[in-house]
Amino acid sequence: MIQKTKGARSLAFTEAPCILGSASVAGKKEAEGPLGDCFDVTGEDDLFGEKTWEAAESRIQKEACILALGKAKIRAEQVRCLYGGDLLRQGIATSMGAEELQIPMFGLFGACSTSGEALALAAMAVSAGYGEYMLAVTSSHFGTAEKEFRFPLSYASQRPLSAQWTVTGAGAFVVGSRKGAVRIAGVTVGKIVDYGLKDSQNMGACMAPAAADTIACHLEDFGREAQEYDRIVTGDLGYVGQSILLDLLRERGIDIGGLHLDCGKLIFDQKAQDTHAGGSGCGCAAVTLSAFILPKIISGEWKRVLFVPTGALMSTVSYNEGASVPGIAHGILLEHCPDWKEEG
Amino acid sequence: MIQKTKGARSLAFTEAPCILGSASVAGKKEAEGPLGDCFDVTGEDDLFGEKTWEAAESRIQKEACILALGKAKIRAEQVRCLYGGDLLRQGIATSMGAEELQIPMFGLFGACSTSGEALALAAMAVSAGYGEYMLAVTSSHFGTAEKEFRFPLSYASQRPLSAQWTVTGAGAFVVGSRKGAVRIAGVTVGKIVDYGLKDSQNMGACMAPAAADTIACHLEDFGREAQEYDRIVTGDLGYVGQSILLDLLRERGIDIGGLHLDCGKLIFDQKAQDTHAGGSGCGCAAVTLSAFILPKIISGEWKRVLFVPTGALMSTVSYNEGASVPGIAHGILLEHCPDWKEEG
Repeated sequence: MIQKTKGARSLAFTEAPCILGSASVAGKKEAEGPLGDCFDVTGEDDLFGEKTWEAAESRIQKEACILALGKAKIRAEQVRCLYGGDLLRQGIATSMGAEELQIPMFGLFGACSTSGEALALAAMAVSAGYGEYMLAVTSSHFGTAEKEFRFPLSYASQRPLSAQWTVTGAGAFVVGSRKGAVRIAGVTVGKIVDYGLKDSQNMGACMAPAAADTIACHLEDFGREAQEYDRIVTGDLGYVGQSILLDLLRERGIDIGGLHLDCGKLIFDQKAQDTHAGGSGCGCAAVTLSAFILPKIISGEWKRVLFVPTGALMSTVSYNEGASVPGIAHGILLEHCPDWKEEG
Repeated sequence: MIQKTKGARSLAFTEAPCILGSASVAGKKEAEGPLGDCFDVTGEDDLFGEKTWEAAESRIQKEACILALGKAKIRAEQVRCLYGGDLLRQGIATSMGAEELQIPMFGLFGACSTSGEALALAAMAVSAGYGEYMLAVTSSHFGTAEKEFRFPLSYASQRPLSAQWTVTGAGAFVVGSRKGAVRIAGVTVGKIVDYGLKDSQNMGACMAPAAADTIACHLEDFGREAQEYDRIVTGDLGYVGQSILLDLLRERGIDIGGLHLDCGKLIFDQKAQDTHAGGSGCGCAAVTLSAFILPKIISGEWKRVLFVPTGALMSTVSYNEGASVPGIAHGILLEHCPDWKEEG
């Protein structure tokens, strides 16, 4: 099932599972951004026909799952387990969204790193032979996140320039043992990294040390140079977090300057859309992976990509009690399958 | 790695991983209850030397992990992954508790079923050969849960008789490939089951249908009668949920009346401790498993036990918006290892 890697935090799959289908559902602001044309479905408002933001977020999770299943040409009953999560307290977007699919389920919380956590666990389960198909899904929503973490929208609070804009979006991925165009060749499981930062309005800075740790550990475990990757893509460090990440890696002798992309930077036009330090939320990395990154790996434009969603571990309670905001980041090694041809 | 079971929701491990060490840390009220003498550590107050309840809950998670590692005679660095969760928004008790151990981590949320979710994922990872040791940990705390879900304690709100009392406690389990006294022979992964109930003060009723579904599915998948188990132990259905569970299973022709125990009933003396419908919280099943159930399997008094922690999937936001409270329950098949003898 696995080859030994040099270190204990990474797994390299001998029989690598593939991403057989994926889908992205995104909101209105995301539709107006640079990736607007790439999403499978976008909403005209952020309610998606529901009465509350929470119900809307559940709705887009479910829609993303159904679309991904359709692209993988399988039915929900064929999926062995669903691995899902969101940013809300007690993960209600996922509970309410996944309910109708009636797939055995593992609920996850890794803040904005959850898409990496879900993909890692789904790939581990497929590679172990626990089922032919697994489903990984995550979401976030600007309206639910502002209510959960910040102020009522109608207060029109000012945001510091280091603040990020939570993406309204859900991404779903069918991971399976069947051959496909993109394989998950390995995973590097994240540790909690805490530099003692306490500013929840500067989450890029809180998460950057965890991303640096996971990237450095991944390269070490696999015995590779950064230049052997076409791209290293973090989840939502944004503009502030990116510059810290590049500095932290340079201190360790690793230069990823020419290779690095960040989903939080890709998804919005910073100036035209007034999104300050960039996008965030566990939907940000998920929809960008499905809509922008995977197509480039499928086409072979990129042969090897390290996808590193990043999470800031905090709640309003921990923040109010003066706790720091540690970060976590999971690394997913994605590779183009050169021999694969779609049937039919 | 796995034998085929009849249905798609269960896994039976050919090389079953073992629980190599476990620990329970519990609060003052739990210490005064029927299991008081069984816990490894109990606190004199529920702050455990910390300044906030949240910090106290993190502290007992960490203490339970350290004690379990000690009993398994391994160091934190030897653990490949930690699977942990709690009831709080954004799982902060686990993030803050697990941080110091510096073990690669998967954060989970399955409400009070999380101990089952963590044990299932840890067992799946060990059985797949992904590492020699995994750690599963969950906690709950009366003070943090009342703040999270209900009213400030100083309001002295009256509680309906169907309400349960959140257990202050943390349970940790080292799952490994080495032989031990108790093996995890299989798992049955839970589905979300929703009977449309909306009363968050009657969680036993909300969770009972999920427990019935998982137990019936488990027996069907493994092709066994209930009477082939020494005990079937649910997480925290309490007095109200138990009677519903027994009725729902009888409708399916399954009688577990003589075999059924519930951790929520075991942990408190209902009359003397004024705990209404029983204990709850994801610490309830975890500490009862470690302190009361595992010793009976280790001694061989019980040879085969189905452990079924149950969760109610809700938040104050979903409750206030009128959403129902669906349930989920994961089944963990625990068996006495007759050939095992402790070294030394």
